[in-house]
Amino acid sequence: MHQPLFDKHKHTLERAVQALAERGHWSAYNELPSPRTYGEDALAAGKRAFEAHLGKAFALDQPGRTGMHGDERSPYGVNLGVSYPVCEPEQLIEASLKAMPSWQRIGAQGRAGVLLEVLERLNLRSFEIAHAVMMTTGQAWMMAFQAGGPHAQDRGLEAVACAWREQSAIPAEATWEKPQGKNAALRMRKQFEIVGRGVALVIGCGTFPTWNTYPGVFAALATGNPVIVKPHGNAILPAAITVSVIREVLIEHGLDPGAALLAVAPRRSATQYLATHQDVKSVDFTGSTPFGHWLIDHCKQAQVYAELAGVNHVVVDSTEAYRAMLKNLAFSLSLYSGQMCTTTQVIIVPATGIETDEGHKPFEQVASDLGAAIAELLADPKTAHAVLGAIQSDDTLRRIDEAHQHGEVVISSRALEHPEFAGARVRTPTLLWCDATDEKAYMEERFGPISFVVRAPDTRAAIALSERITREHGALTAGVYSNRPDVVEAVVQASLRSKVALSINLTGGVFINQSAAFSDYHGTGGNPSANAAYADAAFVANRFRVVQRRSHV
Amino acid sequence: MHQPLFDKHKHTLERAVQALAERGHWSAYNELPSPRTYGEDALAAGKRAFEAHLGKAFALDQPGRTGMHGDERSPYGVNLGVSYPVCEPEQLIEASLKAMPSWQRIGAQGRAGVLLEVLERLNLRSFEIAHAVMMTTGQAWMMAFQAGGPHAQDRGLEAVACAWREQSAIPAEATWEKPQGKNAALRMRKQFEIVGRGVALVIGCGTFPTWNTYPGVFAALATGNPVIVKPHGNAILPAAITVSVIREVLIEHGLDPGAALLAVAPRRSATQYLATHQDVKSVDFTGSTPFGHWLIDHCKQAQVYAELAGVNHVVVDSTEAYRAMLKNLAFSLSLYSGQMCTTTQVIIVPATGIETDEGHKPFEQVASDLGAAIAELLADPKTAHAVLGAIQSDDTLRRIDEAHQHGEVVISSRALEHPEFAGARVRTPTLLWCDATDEKAYMEERFGPISFVVRAPDTRAAIALSERITREHGALTAGVYSNRPDVVEAVVQASLRSKVALSINLTGGVFINQSAAFSDYHGTGGNPSANAAYADAAFVANRFRVVQRRSHV
Repeated sequence: MHQPLFDKHKHTLERAVQALAERGHWSAYNELPSPRTYGEDALAAGKRAFEAHLGKAFALDQPGRTGMHGDERSPYGVNLGVSYPVCEPEQLIEASLKAMPSWQRIGAQGRAGVLLEVLERLNLRSFEIAHAVMMTTGQAWMMAFQAGGPHAQDRGLEAVACAWREQSAIPAEATWEKPQGKNAALRMRKQFEIVGRGVALVIGCGTFPTWNTYPGVFAALATGNPVIVKPHGNAILPAAITVSVIREVLIEHGLDPGAALLAVAPRRSATQYLATHQDVKSVDFTGSTPFGHWLIDHCKQAQVYAELAGVNHVVVDSTEAYRAMLKNLAFSLSLYSGQMCTTTQVIIVPATGIETDEGHKPFEQVASDLGAAIAELLADPKTAHAVLGAIQSDDTLRRIDEAHQHGEVVISSRALEHPEFAGARVRTPTLLWCDATDEKAYMEERFGPISFVVRAPDTRAAIALSERITREHGALTAGVYSNRPDVVEAVVQASLRSKVALSINLTGGVFINQSAAFSDYHGTGGNPSANAAYADAAFVANRFRVVQRRSHV
Repeated sequence: MHQPLFDKHKHTLERAVQALAERGHWSAYNELPSPRTYGEDALAAGKRAFEAHLGKAFALDQPGRTGMHGDERSPYGVNLGVSYPVCEPEQLIEASLKAMPSWQRIGAQGRAGVLLEVLERLNLRSFEIAHAVMMTTGQAWMMAFQAGGPHAQDRGLEAVACAWREQSAIPAEATWEKPQGKNAALRMRKQFEIVGRGVALVIGCGTFPTWNTYPGVFAALATGNPVIVKPHGNAILPAAITVSVIREVLIEHGLDPGAALLAVAPRRSATQYLATHQDVKSVDFTGSTPFGHWLIDHCKQAQVYAELAGVNHVVVDSTEAYRAMLKNLAFSLSLYSGQMCTTTQVIIVPATGIETDEGHKPFEQVASDLGAAIAELLADPKTAHAVLGAIQSDDTLRRIDEAHQHGEVVISSRALEHPEFAGARVRTPTLLWCDATDEKAYMEERFGPISFVVRAPDTRAAIALSERITREHGALTAGVYSNRPDVVEAVVQASLRSKVALSINLTGGVFINQSAAFSDYHGTGGNPSANAAYADAAFVANRFRVVQRRSHV
């Protein structure tokens, strides 16, 4: 009965598999909030749908309900007031286990069909989800739409395609016929069944509640595992909408909706209970390094896929496009107030300065020119708000307030008034500079709009520092600006050794913090910032097992 | 310069990839010690080559040598007297790290070519390796040749093919071109480099020193990691020959032989040092559950692939071929004196007996008929020695001696004189019976020729017991005999839930303990007996990372 869904979405799935093999530009879902794609009324309807959630109990018919909870506080100061069912963790596990056999039985093809239907429905609700993402995370509208909607859906589809590629390579059955010389051949029928490993727990973060959870959610589901989504306490709504859409599609197609559950856990103990439960076989996590390491250390019954903190950095050696480089860096540092896991924190510049198309620039000038570029980018309030969004957490606000302690201030963070949301907490970036020897300043993640221009003795030292940062503290992104091929090559080799994705001489409309599904691997899984990438074979292949049976023909 | 090797072996590699997709019968290396394949002189030359090692220092030019060690004692009582270099663990790691960049640089294709050349050379030395395996493990000659030679080589090739399939799916580079409406498209060149994760440690076992290590060795090498092979102290020679062949091919092709090293570790502390070293990123292990769990708990810096103890079992409900069933079981229990990780230990039979083509057989009769079938199989000494081989370890001898304590004896183990090797320790199997409630008797692995006919209340209870054994104690193999489709289906469902490979009604020339490369998955990785299978995508995909770089075109 799930064949029609597979047939309906087969072309998209095949195209996604092809995209993974080619890794050029491809996207299944339009990143532009275009009325031609989404309908003339989509923007208004999405806003209405979002507003309909406010002040209400979110309808989610899950077992084991013990109460309702919800205290999301919007970085825009908007009163949300949504409450969500809190369910007994053990009963969530039981519901998952109950749903597992039927979810496995429909096979990889059945699951792919269902999940592509889910993604299509999520896509149609992109505007509603965008509002939910914007209002819970503080992202500006366009980012909330793109990263929260189509880009997250692309990452989900990428995981399904990856999982489909691996699973479809396993034949359902085979005839094994072994010649026996003059005797009759031995003949056996062998059947190969793909089974999920168990309950999958996906723990979301407060900044990208869909983009960072969809890979784990869709990879786990595609490979036959029921999923429990535990969202960040301040970004529940996007996850709740997502889970409700999955459950809706499951129910419509006669499947047990226990395969997708929301775990709202006001206390960390409930999350820990779930994460260490013997029936939970995978944990996907995006968040802090301490809790990530706690999970890796304590969830021995599960495979943990963790994206943690890192110190992203760029080596600046020289450039033939000084202005464009500064503009590119300024935008990267400002986008969503540096609250992307891919934002550069450290810009390493030789003490002797750099050669550019505008002549030699001393270290101090590079720092102050970058500060000026940021100020210029954010001079127009309309642009500033479209770029910055709002500050997601109190911790980040505190870090901004304390940032000046960590170095010499190039530019200070300023609070901006938001024209539309009076309570919005909007801050421009802080840019500091310090010497490379002052490691305690810059050598740990300072999440938010806080960056350092770090003075290294020379380019060679800058490259060595870059490699050491990645090895010891992790990085999701690294960059280099240089017009000397030997310098670029040295940074490339360092990136291969330390296993970090490298952007070279970005001066145009691509920014280091952007990672495109089907083309860019998000993270390598090879340095301390993450032990897995979105999405590769390693991200999906260990989520299922093949159980065979054989008998004589 | 490695293209010629790839071209030379391309057809074999492609055929292996095809075999994995089809999972029918296929083998790259002839399992018959046929003069037509291996040459008229192969048998004698292999024996001479083996004998040339005896009493000598094994030549292996490795760094950090601190001395020589070797005290392998042959289960056949033959005096071996080979000594091997003992090297400083830290210097082995350093040599590995030094070899890694060039091994990575030749790429997946270069590595596949080199490794297929290695496998071809190993194949040509199958007779020498067979003698080494036979004399260190106690396997009978034909098993030592097949499992130690061509079958192990097939498993190695399978791992290379699996790794090649995953790596060749990643394009070396791509052009990413994103339309920008009326503006010029954004164009980037992206390059994707496959890098191994770090040093791979492969820890071998005493019974199958090549078959159980080749999957890890070849999977790790194929994905760009240098390998350190730490053999079991009593089965070093087959590993030493293997490592020397790999090094020989590396040197011949201008590569650093540090990519393959032998770690002879008289003390466990050296193994633990290697296993927990920060630069060791994967550990493949076959052996005891306690040390396996120690590795999993302590090697947090590495991915551990562990094959541990289990309690393999068969449910007997009914049969239409009673004699054939007994013969099949008797052979399985006797082969290599039950020293295969896949040998059945527990045969669960309903207390009410079973229906057969020879009428109803009470429980007691099934047990005694199985005992008689074993006795009959081994009545002819020539057959007995060809099947049994010798007992590998003192621990197994002790377990045989103490076995009668664990149940009612159906047949007792007997010591046999070997016509050729006076000092050989040859034992026939012990068969016991007990009640299902007597769990402490049969519910732990009793490695060696010790099996239990376990009396369950009825078939349903037998199936439930089978599932519980797999879940709680693990099993690499499970079986069922029944002519009732509903019973077979119930066992199939139990096998899917508990994740164990199932053999159904084996009455011919296929035995439950046999696992054919390219067709049978060895282990599922889904129950306590092993956390990985030989070989699937999960076994290879997490051994490498993709590091990308991108720049404007």
